Amino acid sequence: MKEITFEQVADLLFNNDNFLVLMHKSPDGDAVGSAYALCMVLRSIGKKANPFCGDEIPPMYEYFTRYVEPQDFQPEYIISVDLASVGLLSGKAKEYADKVNLCIDHHGSNTGYAEYGYVDGKISSCAEIIKYLLDVMKVDIDKNVANAVFTGICTDTGCFKYSSVSPQTHRVAAELMEAGAESADICHLMFDSKSREKLELERMVLETLEFSERGEIAFIYISLETMEKSGAAQSDTDGIASMPRQIEGVKIGITMKEKDGGEFRFSVRTADDIDASEICKQFGGGGHKAAAGCSIHKEQTAAKEDMLEACKAALKGIE
Amino acid sequence: MKEITFEQVADLLFNNDNFLVLMHKSPDGDAVGSAYALCMVLRSIGKKANPFCGDEIPPMYEYFTRYVEPQDFQPEYIISVDLASVGLLSGKAKEYADKVNLCIDHHGSNTGYAEYGYVDGKISSCAEIIKYLLDVMKVDIDKNVANAVFTGICTDTGCFKYSSVSPQTHRVAAELMEAGAESADICHLMFDSKSREKLELERMVLETLEFSERGEIAFIYISLETMEKSGAAQSDTDGIASMPRQIEGVKIGITMKEKDGGEFRFSVRTADDIDASEICKQFGGGGHKAAAGCSIHKEQTAAKEDMLEACKAALKGIE
Repeated sequence: MKEITFEQVADLLFNNDNFLVLMHKSPDGDAVGSAYALCMVLRSIGKKANPFCGDEIPPMYEYFTRYVEPQDFQPEYIISVDLASVGLLSGKAKEYADKVNLCIDHHGSNTGYAEYGYVDGKISSCAEIIKYLLDVMKVDIDKNVANAVFTGICTDTGCFKYSSVSPQTHRVAAELMEAGAESADICHLMFDSKSREKLELERMVLETLEFSERGEIAFIYISLETMEKSGAAQSDTDGIASMPRQIEGVKIGITMKEKDGGEFRFSVRTADDIDASEICKQFGGGGHKAAAGCSIHKEQTAAKEDMLEACKAALKGIE
Repeated sequence: MKEITFEQVADLLFNNDNFLVLMHKSPDGDAVGSAYALCMVLRSIGKKANPFCGDEIPPMYEYFTRYVEPQDFQPEYIISVDLASVGLLSGKAKEYADKVNLCIDHHGSNTGYAEYGYVDGKISSCAEIIKYLLDVMKVDIDKNVANAVFTGICTDTGCFKYSSVSPQTHRVAAELMEAGAESADICHLMFDSKSREKLELERMVLETLEFSERGEIAFIYISLETMEKSGAAQSDTDGIASMPRQIEGVKIGITMKEKDGGEFRFSVRTADDIDASEICKQFGGGGHKAAAGCSIHKEQTAAKEDMLEACKAALKGIE
């Protein structure tokens, strides 16, 4: 992958057309916000562009996604946003795995699968990178674009809470508000509002909470049965992964989620100098230093034990 | 009270000495952050200054309060911060109720009890006003001052979530980070950290969740037994009162808490045009439109029924 500048990214966007903007599976606010913002802007400069995801777009983002009706065209230029590796593509998006022309991402662990790439692992969110790109492109940021970008930034930073937030992140938030971003409404929707089903999911998941290593590791488990009984949507599990790490004294929070077909998906959140991405790499996953994920295809107890062992080793590594 | 400009406030600070900076009872992050930041800055320009509160300062703020050891002097100039009315002073601070020389506040409802005042009800927090004042004073903002001011802003805005946050609030946050504010650590401590006891309290309280009126009223109950079994502190119940209202579709969230001596304390949170303060007034309580409280001295079931009836009537009132 050839690393290029914002100016070169802008040139590629101005000089191509019929864009498909790929999102990772189980798309979060940053993936959806980045992809939709980019498509809205590309359309505003006369291009055709569709966001594309193998999974459904969670309805909670409809306050900006509803402004992007699908366009009919043959994709010619494939862009990925917030996509660390093509292994994170799902469904029909997989067929573009080896055809990505341009990758815009903020994962330091990005595998470099695209022809061209703008990747900066120090930026809070892919949406924050999109904002810098739009500034270089000198395009208009209207209310809908501002809402999409603001959504990406606030969801990927826990509402400006994480260490990935820089002074510049706050300045970008200020500019997006001035461009019309409905920040208070977005924050309420993303952080201070939950469905009965999500609340029931949280209650059931809390019952599974286990501690080990003198309370420094906390573990929760979301089974398929829990998902069904609670009636929660897949997107309701967003945010649950941060619960175990929020408990005082916990240095590694593990969320284990049962998937169809004997797969267990792990989310790992870490404190201090423990590298979550290093832990998850051992199982073919990746992510950021304080937040990463991976899948283990094993029997339930064995999968859990494998992850716990890796986390205990990581804890020992910093002692 | 004579309303004055930042320049005039700065003159008063430069031209006086032996300051006492008053905080309201049960001081929150904005009161503590504003008072301590102001005292640190006054000391840095050679003045004597003590923060003063009738109640104890919660230990969670010690990361900046520990840098302000009490100084020995006779108070000559009395300042209040974040204090809407002198009725909110407690304990020994009450004796300064009619002696406040200067009031710095962001409550539009400020009663104008001081000789001079800088009050702006449109600013997110008193701490944000303090930051503008420090800019006018052209004093150095060191890491401890930055931490104190940042704490005031982030706690009073739910971490940049509320509608009181302006673009300028985000720019101030950026400048405070550049001055050394440990924003991620502060946000983690204030918002993403809870004791095992508090988590257990939340889990037990969720078991009591009940809905009525087609899901528009949600009710939770905290018994003395729950407090004892969870091992939670009284301060751990902060925030729990907002839980029922966060559920989708809920217009009135009721939290009923058992107290010693056959008293039940209610917290009522409302959405839309329902006036929580009007509901609580019927039982001798009060508060704001969206958040109010009262006590009912009755048998448990009767107390709950009384409150539910009042809430149902309030719901009918807006139909």
